[in-house]
Amino acid sequence: MHEFDLIARIRARVGEDTRADDVVLGVGDDAAVLQVAGGERLVATADTLVEGVHFAVGDAPPVIGHKALAVNLSDLAAMGATPRWLLLNLVLPDGDPDWLDGFLDGWLPLAQRHRARLVGGDLTSGPRCVTVQALGTLPAGSELRRSGARPGDRVWVSGALGGAARALELRKAGESVPKEWATRLDRPEPRLALGEHLRGLAGACIDVSDGLFADLGHVLTASGVGARVSLARLPLAPGLERLDEDHRWALGGSGGDDYELCFTAPAGASARVQALSESLGLALTDIGEIEADGGLRCIAPDGAAWTPRASGYRHFGADT
Amino acid sequence: MHEFDLIARIRARVGEDTRADDVVLGVGDDAAVLQVAGGERLVATADTLVEGVHFAVGDAPPVIGHKALAVNLSDLAAMGATPRWLLLNLVLPDGDPDWLDGFLDGWLPLAQRHRARLVGGDLTSGPRCVTVQALGTLPAGSELRRSGARPGDRVWVSGALGGAARALELRKAGESVPKEWATRLDRPEPRLALGEHLRGLAGACIDVSDGLFADLGHVLTASGVGARVSLARLPLAPGLERLDEDHRWALGGSGGDDYELCFTAPAGASARVQALSESLGLALTDIGEIEADGGLRCIAPDGAAWTPRASGYRHFGADT
Repeated sequence: MHEFDLIARIRARVGEDTRADDVVLGVGDDAAVLQVAGGERLVATADTLVEGVHFAVGDAPPVIGHKALAVNLSDLAAMGATPRWLLLNLVLPDGDPDWLDGFLDGWLPLAQRHRARLVGGDLTSGPRCVTVQALGTLPAGSELRRSGARPGDRVWVSGALGGAARALELRKAGESVPKEWATRLDRPEPRLALGEHLRGLAGACIDVSDGLFADLGHVLTASGVGARVSLARLPLAPGLERLDEDHRWALGGSGGDDYELCFTAPAGASARVQALSESLGLALTDIGEIEADGGLRCIAPDGAAWTPRASGYRHFGADT
Repeated sequence: MHEFDLIARIRARVGEDTRADDVVLGVGDDAAVLQVAGGERLVATADTLVEGVHFAVGDAPPVIGHKALAVNLSDLAAMGATPRWLLLNLVLPDGDPDWLDGFLDGWLPLAQRHRARLVGGDLTSGPRCVTVQALGTLPAGSELRRSGARPGDRVWVSGALGGAARALELRKAGESVPKEWATRLDRPEPRLALGEHLRGLAGACIDVSDGLFADLGHVLTASGVGARVSLARLPLAPGLERLDEDHRWALGGSGGDDYELCFTAPAGASARVQALSESLGLALTDIGEIEADGGLRCIAPDGAAWTPRASGYRHFGADT
């Protein structure tokens, strides 16, 4: 049975539970939104990284430490949440202090930079696997849901796309990987400052973990709308312009692991988005428009429709 | 390197992080206590169960579903927290809907009974492993810390001990296991109602996951005190009285997996504890006294000191 079907099965069986009134937003977004006392909301997400699936046997421990934390912080960023606390569950095949030290070398600077504090978890023997839970907070009603896109909104994406996918492609082919692309793959930067500044500005938001088209597709489905995206406007990672069109659009649109944010905002808010881009020193690119008709339409520079390759990890509840 | 040393290594490196003022209680208790807005505190815990370590290949999925949730809820109970939300990260070797259905058959009734709602997580391919994050809340200042035991306090334990350990012993020997003991091992009942009622009554509290003496030992260390426990008073699971003294004391005192609560309360509060026992319909037994001198002294019926066998799983930050 397909993983998506298993997830649907879980959702069907726990559905009643998640409609309780202290669950503002349950399974099915980047993270859950939970009602605590006062005007604050708790945002909770948890992702597991398994050796041989999300990272390779022999990958450098600092890369795994950084990435395990980054992918979870990225989910908080996609909700507009401020990171607060972390729990870390490590399954390790043996008690190797050097591996653990390396893992923490990757984890700690990222956690400290974003003031996210490790408050619990456990350490168990077994096949290597890392589960991180990230808890954040935001003011009530300010969470950036996938369901907030409206026809006429502009579609924006942060940073540059395709670098991580290109690095993975070269690495799998045994070719040398330029440092900038390798950094995108191994040390993704969760866009937390952007997410916080998008509260009250963005309609919908998602992090680009599975590839832009797949993740934007989740937004379109959740919002009951469609979108037209201009391939010529895709902000591709420097260097990808040397590849042919199909290849670079596939990398930029369907390649995962960039951990940029894709969000929508009313057309009238474009000047505010551009001002935000300048204040953060982070490229924010208008790549298209939300339309009432469902589905994603990718338009090549010659005006023809272009069909992206399928892509995407499958997460339980999208990628909460 | 021993797992305890690895945990100490993590604690040493993240120590600075966990002294932040929104972390009321970080690594090192049954769960972390976190400051959200208003007078409420968030209590967070996460435990991983690995196939071949915490459960056997071929164990019934409902047993795993129940137990994975129960051990986490038990950590909330030990803090006095009210369970609220759950995140579930499943790593499964294949997309087997029957296994998942069985897991949920064990999970859902327990979650529903305690009004704990699944709000996120993920599903990944790999060697079977289950991580659960349980979030609860309690009024500010009411958490039951390990460090709250004072000389002169009485030491109490809920329910009966040793049944789970006896079931495991018989099962490993290939002998038939009486149903009551098997239920203790396979379907432990987290003592959530007791934990909530102990707010404002108990000094220190811990759940008996690793064995009474080991877990009480954590309380003694955290509180900087010692204790004298009368072996004749240990509330042993029915049927264990047929075993010889050494055997039954080892099962009741050093056997794990019972998930009862061990707590301390001032001597003057004993009548309140007994009234609570009656109102909950749950045995609460006074097994000894907290003393200023460090260490645990187990006293046999003839007045001689008795030395328990060492026992206990090792968790990261005890069993947060």
